[in-house]
Amino acid sequence: MFEGSKIGRFVSKEDYRREQSDLRTELLVVQRELRQNKIPVMILLAGIEGAGKGEVTNRLNLWLDTRHVQTHAFWDETDEERARPRYWRFWRVVPARGEMAILFGAWYQDPIEQRFRGLCTDAELDMELARIVDFERMLVQDGALIVKFWFHMAEADQKARLKALSRDDRSRWKMLPDKAKFSQHYQEFERIGERVILHTDRGISPWFLVEATDRRYRDLTVGKTLLEAIRTRLDQTDAMEPSASGRVLGLPDVATAQVTLIDQLDMTLALPQAEYRSELKRLQADLNELAWQAYKAKRSTVLVFEGLDAAGKGGAIRRITGAIDARLFRTIPIAAPTDEETAHHYLWRFWRQIPRAGYITIYDRSWYGRVLVERVEDGLASDAEWRRAYTEINLFEEQLAEHGIILVKFWLQVSQDEQLRRFEERERVPYKRYKINAEDWRNRERWPLYKPAINEMVTRTSTEFASWNLIEANDKCYARIKVLRLLCEQIKKGLEQGPVSVRATCGARRIDSKSGNGRAATEPEPPGA
Amino acid sequence: MFEGSKIGRFVSKEDYRREQSDLRTELLVVQRELRQNKIPVMILLAGIEGAGKGEVTNRLNLWLDTRHVQTHAFWDETDEERARPRYWRFWRVVPARGEMAILFGAWYQDPIEQRFRGLCTDAELDMELARIVDFERMLVQDGALIVKFWFHMAEADQKARLKALSRDDRSRWKMLPDKAKFSQHYQEFERIGERVILHTDRGISPWFLVEATDRRYRDLTVGKTLLEAIRTRLDQTDAMEPSASGRVLGLPDVATAQVTLIDQLDMTLALPQAEYRSELKRLQADLNELAWQAYKAKRSTVLVFEGLDAAGKGGAIRRITGAIDARLFRTIPIAAPTDEETAHHYLWRFWRQIPRAGYITIYDRSWYGRVLVERVEDGLASDAEWRRAYTEINLFEEQLAEHGIILVKFWLQVSQDEQLRRFEERERVPYKRYKINAEDWRNRERWPLYKPAINEMVTRTSTEFASWNLIEANDKCYARIKVLRLLCEQIKKGLEQGPVSVRATCGARRIDSKSGNGRAATEPEPPGA
Repeated sequence: MFEGSKIGRFVSKEDYRREQSDLRTELLVVQRELRQNKIPVMILLAGIEGAGKGEVTNRLNLWLDTRHVQTHAFWDETDEERARPRYWRFWRVVPARGEMAILFGAWYQDPIEQRFRGLCTDAELDMELARIVDFERMLVQDGALIVKFWFHMAEADQKARLKALSRDDRSRWKMLPDKAKFSQHYQEFERIGERVILHTDRGISPWFLVEATDRRYRDLTVGKTLLEAIRTRLDQTDAMEPSASGRVLGLPDVATAQVTLIDQLDMTLALPQAEYRSELKRLQADLNELAWQAYKAKRSTVLVFEGLDAAGKGGAIRRITGAIDARLFRTIPIAAPTDEETAHHYLWRFWRQIPRAGYITIYDRSWYGRVLVERVEDGLASDAEWRRAYTEINLFEEQLAEHGIILVKFWLQVSQDEQLRRFEERERVPYKRYKINAEDWRNRERWPLYKPAINEMVTRTSTEFASWNLIEANDKCYARIKVLRLLCEQIKKGLEQGPVSVRATCGARRIDSKSGNGRAATEPEPPGA
Repeated sequence: MFEGSKIGRFVSKEDYRREQSDLRTELLVVQRELRQNKIPVMILLAGIEGAGKGEVTNRLNLWLDTRHVQTHAFWDETDEERARPRYWRFWRVVPARGEMAILFGAWYQDPIEQRFRGLCTDAELDMELARIVDFERMLVQDGALIVKFWFHMAEADQKARLKALSRDDRSRWKMLPDKAKFSQHYQEFERIGERVILHTDRGISPWFLVEATDRRYRDLTVGKTLLEAIRTRLDQTDAMEPSASGRVLGLPDVATAQVTLIDQLDMTLALPQAEYRSELKRLQADLNELAWQAYKAKRSTVLVFEGLDAAGKGGAIRRITGAIDARLFRTIPIAAPTDEETAHHYLWRFWRQIPRAGYITIYDRSWYGRVLVERVEDGLASDAEWRRAYTEINLFEEQLAEHGIILVKFWLQVSQDEQLRRFEERERVPYKRYKINAEDWRNRERWPLYKPAINEMVTRTSTEFASWNLIEANDKCYARIKVLRLLCEQIKKGLEQGPVSVRATCGARRIDSKSGNGRAATEPEPPGA
């Protein structure tokens, strides 16, 4: 694969000067167009050591308008990052629409390093690469442009380059934090690189191999390739509607069943007041203790509350928050996104609220809005967007589970009659009045559209690691007790069984229950060392 | 001071039930009004151990609409927090306008604990308390409501309470992270508490002493006091314009000098091309090395670039970023704030970008917009707002310096003639065209208004720890070299002299240059232990 990267291409000083000037002007022009078209760009730099990725970055920073370019290396994982699922640190730095980010290694760095150190098998590496493909596809479908560069050179050239660098006391390379010394095992690294590229070189986010022996050739090639990629992306924008940018990939259409899951709930279930009071007291005490246990064990809990208007989400949540020490949880009400949130992929706003190890986040409405309100109401998400959201959500929740987060999802259902009764009550009682508005009445009318959406959501996103809990909520007492009971059961089970191994992947970190930090397992020497 | 908190007040069960119901309704009503009026509320809980601050919080969470209340404890400082100035962790959690936050201990916790452990003197504690007063005043002047509760009870009552708690295996109190055991030194703690309250009980953010012996009395008192405080604040809103909410405190008016500092710059200074090239190369190499040294020493650098339009800020910044490894710096262009930023104090957007230890942040325009564009243009900041900004900015920069951040501020000045020439050039040259717009021309006309603003800014915010560097920028070569030279000098000096001790305060952390973490010094036992 890398033969073409060892030819010894070079560019003369004069050619470089001449071409650079035009290139720079063109890059500034397309960068402005990217901003106007609100397209976020990610430039990934990977490849062999000593190729001068830092130099390339500095060059790009000279050419581009740096006010809209951020560079991110992933040297040192902070404890706040370790205390959350692995991809949180990438979500932190994905650029807003119209901005650019240069990412060193990015999500490829850990899998390559772990395979190189022999910490995972080829099969596990492949699993992780499949995840990467999913991740990149999701960003691209959302409108992002991802340009990936792999820098390569012949073994002898690399050796010479590294020797020169190590002689120079002011060499930037010498100041870098120590990473695995890939350079000492050229062939093994090349083998892994080939595997990585083969598995992740998709049309939507292709790899560009760049021969890095000659600096001028390397930089010009990167610049020209980037320019070309941006132009191609801008042309696509002209050709299509932004909201239709996504294609439905591998998602068969589900015929909407006449009788839905929701219909099968027994809405007559109820609980007498006396029983409610004693159960409430008992379960709240249990929950209080479980929350502290989870805190001590550094295991996080994510709660999702969805349900019809007036189904009693707020009341159920208050019975939970009333039981847990307020310092341990945060409630995140999901309303209209802020403009910073709108400028990112729709999952970004949920990623940013993921709790640190040991804490609890309660989402009052959630990412499921994508397949509920955004599906049903006009103009919020295109068909393609909400259809692919099922897969995106499952992959997202898989990562939470894999990190050891206990994920508990509730759907609260009320009958149409009961909902009407509650709406009317809300309009009567003074301190409930703020809870009802015209939109609630409008949503009620759209019930025939919501019903199949709910059914499809529950069917498609009930996974082995994150099942829906359906709550018959016509009787508030019954609903609250059922929520508390299931929550206690599922936290208890989660604490007993540890993190869910959804699939063995290369990048996976072990959870160290004492420090609560996911860390790579102990680090053996590279092969042959 | 605390005699009134040891009377043994109590509320009967019936009275509690009766009062609670009304109180809850009222609290929900005013909470809605707070949202409508965009008033952020901070509720601080402090006082003696065993008073049940956690119980109070849970009670408030039951009464209020928890979707708009966040609770924050400051148990464990994360490494990301330690790698930044102390107040960063508080800026992270100040609520947006219309939201509420319940803060445990907040900015009082560390000073009290450090004084209690004998790590600082009374005088140092007082210095820190003066800073707290400044900080709270700044938030209140920005429209926030701060309600501070100090919980107290007689020594015997506390002993009994703690004994009961320690017997109960399910007690939340037992699960708390270990803090200093204040309870064993009731009188010393009472003495410190009295001092803290005396120094920080200002009209703008008063303390409310609450007797905590009887739970019902305690909770009702907190609820009613909070309600009263919110109502008072809401009444003020009706009475005055929001933008006039601030008063000018202790800032004498400075007569604008006829001849300004800016006039005294020698705008003919220039540098020949040949000299420029060799100097540039030398200084960029120095800067590259200094940036790596600062990274290794975990010392951050904050650069501020201000200047007239077309003064060459961008060009100067590019000569800096071109020299530094792109992984070490971030450029933050300051344009219109996002809506999340608008929902906070104007300094919040700058606090959130403060670099981690060892990294560099370059602000292309900055917080000085408050006393430049926001002063000069109508409708952006009131007179009171920009006038008090000088003090606010100095206090902000003092905290950066104290944490060991190297702060370097540049003002780039061009003459009116040269600016005109550059504007015209920008309109001619294709790749410069995006840099000029109608607003630039308008700003130019307002030069007579900007001039005194610039002069006053430089005069008032050139402090011992953060002086302005004035750059004569009519000649780009001269300006860039002067910027690079001063920057290198000031980083070098900063690295040599270590963190600036602006004033010895109680909460100050030592900088551990190896880990880059500011930590409290070694912890001796509490007095008398």
